Amino acid sequence: MLAMDPSAEVFDVTLTLADDTPHWPTHPPVRVGPLRRMADGDANNVTKLSLAAHSGTHVDAPWHFVDDAPRMDEIPLARWIGPCLVARVPEDVRLIEPAHLEALVVPTGTERLILRTANSTGWAAGDLTFREDYVALSPAGARWVVARSIRLIGIDYLSIEPFDQTDRATHPTLLGNDVLIVETLDLSAIEPGPYTLVCLPLGLGPVDGAPARVLLCRQP
Amino acid sequence: MLAMDPSAEVFDVTLTLADDTPHWPTHPPVRVGPLRRMADGDANNVTKLSLAAHSGTHVDAPWHFVDDAPRMDEIPLARWIGPCLVARVPEDVRLIEPAHLEALVVPTGTERLILRTANSTGWAAGDLTFREDYVALSPAGARWVVARSIRLIGIDYLSIEPFDQTDRATHPTLLGNDVLIVETLDLSAIEPGPYTLVCLPLGLGPVDGAPARVLLCRQP
Repeated sequence: MLAMDPSAEVFDVTLTLADDTPHWPTHPPVRVGPLRRMADGDANNVTKLSLAAHSGTHVDAPWHFVDDAPRMDEIPLARWIGPCLVARVPEDVRLIEPAHLEALVVPTGTERLILRTANSTGWAAGDLTFREDYVALSPAGARWVVARSIRLIGIDYLSIEPFDQTDRATHPTLLGNDVLIVETLDLSAIEPGPYTLVCLPLGLGPVDGAPARVLLCRQP
Repeated sequence: MLAMDPSAEVFDVTLTLADDTPHWPTHPPVRVGPLRRMADGDANNVTKLSLAAHSGTHVDAPWHFVDDAPRMDEIPLARWIGPCLVARVPEDVRLIEPAHLEALVVPTGTERLILRTANSTGWAAGDLTFREDYVALSPAGARWVVARSIRLIGIDYLSIEPFDQTDRATHPTLLGNDVLIVETLDLSAIEPGPYTLVCLPLGLGPVDGAPARVLLCRQP
């Protein structure tokens, strides 16, 4: 599935997990704190963590919004790894509709689509305030993704769904059709084009999502 | 650094993180629990986690035991990824000494060495009890690793250092010489030989270690 290629360039598109990582309003904040510290006379340094599974850069399993759908431990690792396309949504688009997706000219057969939006401009500026007006995918946009047989979609904020969307249809449309989701990517350094996605979620069991370390690899 | 190779075989050598994952006696247990559940009337399923950074399959940064040494965010990702050798330590060896390492016939130039020991037999049997008599590397063994210019060492239990070693010299010898450590690997399905290690620690900041998802990739 993967092999070394010394010529490939690797980009880490993971947002650092720390106490100031923005979190979903109804989820607990990320906490990364000292358990043992040599400076306090302990034999070693040990850090402890607490977080929701959907904190920082993370993935959604279908079970996140669909109660009889697959959980993290039922998704083959190969679905998180492989060729992907990074496409750039113009900075002025706040709600991504099918017309915006059509304009990206996504090649037929694209299995993994990663959307760089104005959200990444916020990461580049170091803005860690939680914003309700982040760029997101409309329910019609989600149906477009399903219709195009895309199997994984990534975006650069905590949720792919608009904050105030009362029917919450974006997530169930994607997850109910077995489209995997990767959220809170920091794509500020990523030019559009083809990459190899290497997304490794933490090794959790039958749950709804997991924080992940995510790389994009590019051939020169 | 990495590229797709459809012919490569991939092995997940990560121990699942769950409430019954064995933990170091002075660290808190791993907790993976419900924050929101559709079965309870919530709009979605969300899991929360708490754990020490050295829980389950994880990595040690040099700062874990050496107070002026590099922390997680100072270690280039490329050090966690690349060619490695998996070597099998005979089942009856409990404390790995230089003579045992010599017997493994590690080729000169090996940068990453992963030791499969009798510990993995425990994982294969589903034994999640914390055992004080796990197989570990002696301080002399650690000095051998440093002298051979090995830059990363992996082992299949929570610590590479014997439980009752009063001087705790194994960790400082390795980490003080910038040898990275990967612990709690489940190598029960892994034959000895050359692999590509893909070890992606969670994206934490200036801390002592991190839980990781770890793959071994093999050319056919």
